[in-house]
Amino acid sequence: MKVGLDVGGTKTDAVAVDDAGTIVGRLRVPTGWGPDAVTQTVIDAVRALGTQRGIDLDAVRSVGIGIPGQIEPGSGRVVHAVNLGVDELDLAAAVSPAFGVPVQVENDVKAAALGAYAMHGADGGRPRPGSMAYLNVGTGIAAGIVSNGVLWRGARGTAGEVGHISVDPGGPLCRCGQRGCIEAFAGGGAVAERWARRGALPVRDIFDAADAGDPAALELRAGLARGVASAIRVLVLTADVDIVVLGGGVTALGERLMTDVAAELSASAEASPFMRSLRLRERVELLPAGSPAAALGAALVGAAGTAEHDAEEALAHG
Amino acid sequence: MKVGLDVGGTKTDAVAVDDAGTIVGRLRVPTGWGPDAVTQTVIDAVRALGTQRGIDLDAVRSVGIGIPGQIEPGSGRVVHAVNLGVDELDLAAAVSPAFGVPVQVENDVKAAALGAYAMHGADGGRPRPGSMAYLNVGTGIAAGIVSNGVLWRGARGTAGEVGHISVDPGGPLCRCGQRGCIEAFAGGGAVAERWARRGALPVRDIFDAADAGDPAALELRAGLARGVASAIRVLVLTADVDIVVLGGGVTALGERLMTDVAAELSASAEASPFMRSLRLRERVELLPAGSPAAALGAALVGAAGTAEHDAEEALAHG
Repeated sequence: MKVGLDVGGTKTDAVAVDDAGTIVGRLRVPTGWGPDAVTQTVIDAVRALGTQRGIDLDAVRSVGIGIPGQIEPGSGRVVHAVNLGVDELDLAAAVSPAFGVPVQVENDVKAAALGAYAMHGADGGRPRPGSMAYLNVGTGIAAGIVSNGVLWRGARGTAGEVGHISVDPGGPLCRCGQRGCIEAFAGGGAVAERWARRGALPVRDIFDAADAGDPAALELRAGLARGVASAIRVLVLTADVDIVVLGGGVTALGERLMTDVAAELSASAEASPFMRSLRLRERVELLPAGSPAAALGAALVGAAGTAEHDAEEALAHG
Repeated sequence: MKVGLDVGGTKTDAVAVDDAGTIVGRLRVPTGWGPDAVTQTVIDAVRALGTQRGIDLDAVRSVGIGIPGQIEPGSGRVVHAVNLGVDELDLAAAVSPAFGVPVQVENDVKAAALGAYAMHGADGGRPRPGSMAYLNVGTGIAAGIVSNGVLWRGARGTAGEVGHISVDPGGPLCRCGQRGCIEAFAGGGAVAERWARRGALPVRDIFDAADAGDPAALELRAGLARGVASAIRVLVLTADVDIVVLGGGVTALGERLMTDVAAELSASAEASPFMRSLRLRERVELLPAGSPAAALGAALVGAAGTAEHDAEEALAHG
């Protein structure tokens, strides 16, 4: 048995996964603010899997945590998780004593990529792809690339950071300082900032206003589709992944977003026989709303870490 | 002993490589036009390694060929090598009988990426990178990505096709049909087409005219640097390769090109703390003029194919 958690800005998703890879328990709890509260959220969520979902916590061999922010390679330390009020936190060291099992920490988008890959084809009908990019369209934009079940980690931790590729020198200013970044066009945070009417669901509000013909909303909505389509093209033309799976908060718009993105991809396919040959529309999928992909992926990261831990123990003790 | 060839639009570069990986013989011959002449060029070049460079051809165990165009996966067949007058050619089958050894065929940019990776650090001073992108800036623009010595092949043969990522919706029309592709800005073919004065070395002519203050040349030269810098950013932000090695015909401009590209990278680093943290300028290198990287890489592809061939023979014959 392994446990995985996806620590989000508002909610934390926790799953218990049996040895066959099946999710046997799941719950969501509100995420606390700041290092101590985030640590307590994780501990409480795991304990609740025992008390509320009947998971035998003594059978849990590993805990994996997906969390936004940068993870120092090979450590359980997260830095710059600004949406959680965490500047720096050794989350693995903070959580591990509560359960006495190894704890691994991974960037949430990378964990979701692993989870989405594992779930693809697990439902029977579809063959598992050789490679996949998971494109997270949330407050920001980033991707995780998985090939043959292995995460492409890159040299220095920026693999999949397609959000900060500029696709228009005359485009909107990005919070990173460049102009026309994919994230400036399609990141939920950037789009909401440029939308005059503030509300709980600004991107949905933009789509509604665009449907009603509001020119500013139409422009923002067109930019959003353009940004997502650009990210898909970058991922296929650079890493040549079999499929691109879209997830993250903005994709809660579902088919409303996908229709716009498909139209963008069709436009470049009509202009270019080469782009047409890529059949991009057929290679894009939407992660279902409420998918446990990120928490499942975190559980896989935790278990992989345990396998390494066991091997080291065996070597140390001969 | 293994032989590798880089079949270029005008010249074919052939090397003989000993078991230690050292190039022990090298020569260049003009490339013929059309399928039969290309096949004969390869055969003549290998024979010339024997007659003119003293290589014992009986000791050659494999031949690898890098060639522009698409290679059908797992075959020795090249299609759409338009610069060579080749629409379709089973080059492996055509060359193999002449030498009685296995022949492997690979796309020239992918072969060059493998060769550049193998050469990096082989001269002693520099550590071998974990991952590398080789960015070919020739008539067109494409890259090969190598991680731990293995080529990232992708799902459908378009890995590294960064040339057709659009970075400006108001940019020049690309031969592919899209606007503002990296190749439309920085491909030698596209740049030469937009330059009014035709000559043997149009890109050099553009740089000279730009030095003299010609406005059209200044614009083309700025676009060239911008396109190359965009490709570097895409490769690092998507695949997060340790280093990007530039090669191809346009890079014969050497430091004149690199100075412009470095200025472009510095501009985005100044605008963006995130881009600055990537230290892109330090991660870009220029393949030396006349480097045998592509032919060496082809030799490695040929030898790898032979290892597979041997394993299959052993299985077949018990």
